[in-house]
Amino acid sequence: VREIIQKIPIINKNSVVPIYYQLKEYIKDQIDSENLNVGEMIPSERELAEEFEINRMTVRQAVNELVNEGHLRRQRGVGTFVSKSKINQGLSRLSNFTTDMMNKGMKPGAKLLSMEVIPAPKKIAAKLQIPEGEQVVELFRLRIADGEPMALERSYLPYSKVSPIMNEDMEKQSLYKVLEEKCQLKLLRALQTIEISYSNPTDAHYLEIGPDSPVLLIERVTFLEDDQPIECVSSIYRSDRYKFSIEMNI
Amino acid sequence: VREIIQKIPIINKNSVVPIYYQLKEYIKDQIDSENLNVGEMIPSERELAEEFEINRMTVRQAVNELVNEGHLRRQRGVGTFVSKSKINQGLSRLSNFTTDMMNKGMKPGAKLLSMEVIPAPKKIAAKLQIPEGEQVVELFRLRIADGEPMALERSYLPYSKVSPIMNEDMEKQSLYKVLEEKCQLKLLRALQTIEISYSNPTDAHYLEIGPDSPVLLIERVTFLEDDQPIECVSSIYRSDRYKFSIEMNI
Repeated sequence: VREIIQKIPIINKNSVVPIYYQLKEYIKDQIDSENLNVGEMIPSERELAEEFEINRMTVRQAVNELVNEGHLRRQRGVGTFVSKSKINQGLSRLSNFTTDMMNKGMKPGAKLLSMEVIPAPKKIAAKLQIPEGEQVVELFRLRIADGEPMALERSYLPYSKVSPIMNEDMEKQSLYKVLEEKCQLKLLRALQTIEISYSNPTDAHYLEIGPDSPVLLIERVTFLEDDQPIECVSSIYRSDRYKFSIEMNI
Repeated sequence: VREIIQKIPIINKNSVVPIYYQLKEYIKDQIDSENLNVGEMIPSERELAEEFEINRMTVRQAVNELVNEGHLRRQRGVGTFVSKSKINQGLSRLSNFTTDMMNKGMKPGAKLLSMEVIPAPKKIAAKLQIPEGEQVVELFRLRIADGEPMALERSYLPYSKVSPIMNEDMEKQSLYKVLEEKCQLKLLRALQTIEISYSNPTDAHYLEIGPDSPVLLIERVTFLEDDQPIECVSSIYRSDRYKFSIEMNI
């Protein structure tokens, strides 16, 4: 029996606050105050239910939400552990995943899932301001940090402007570096949106998350100095592992 | 029987793509191409299941996801309708909800849920760089657009600097305007993070969404010209109604 389950009573069964929520907040406080540390195993759902004299389904609801929010992670057949805190990625500048991860002390990785020249689908053509059906490079990459899949990026670029890219190893190199150095393109600005989406079966497979999990969808269009779009990219980030920060001058 | 269900066959039962996902993408395409318009009722789940010769649970999964993502909304006892598209709010400048909504042609509203002077909880004190327990104003507001609840904002400000706020009608006025005009404070910059969270029972009640729904959590700390924090705010936005945009110069 561990420290977390000795501080009884912490659950007020007569409160208007649901019991699962009281337990959830309590475990979160234990993590925040470092009574529970990253990598530490928490008591099993059965143990928590017994010690707090609450229903096991109630415990499960609290633990499930903490897993969804990224505070805890389950390791099948072993137990439930305190997670690393979310990775905080800046959205106020063009990020370089490799450098970002290294700055955070994590080992970056990438997997090139596909790189093809295809006729631009209608929605992509509109974003790139080119005719539907014109040739575009479709680049589909998985971002990895410390061996864990983190994000899926689908980029589309007008082939006529970026053809040298097809000879580059896009698993190892930054796209923006290739655009500047190999394609002699100068990027000026980007417009991004961020919203919640739900993982489709492909996303879920690559990101190793459940199907229909809420994920963060970031869509970006990047413009050249002449204000022509050079890239549109749709990225899906694991919402249990990522948050984004924006600096703002008033 | 409506146009959407006459274009058979669109479902390929031998595809590796799950059937629910094919139906979902099809309905989304119908909305994007304006074959289905905002406010229009889609066929019932029973009708869709019969016409496409698929399981009703499969139809429900597709419709549920489209509701979660904000493309459709259910009106109990009436039917399922095509939603307005998500509200796109800029994150690159301090927003004024009232002006924002009016610019988008929506009728803004706000409800002051509470305004109190309380001793600063530990986490709030740390963000405001003041001692724990020092007096802070806690401002709890619900944002409304066209009669629909949109966001919940919990703001904390050091009472010593913002005491005139207690005499103001915070249901009608912009907080930043009051800070500048009544408290003579000049704001310099803000730091924001955006991530997925899950609605707690209070959030769910006010936002009229299901408990434990994924929501967008935006946390912001705003700084004065002398770089002292003047406000920390935690806002919960409905993820079916909101997305955020960020502009970036490279």
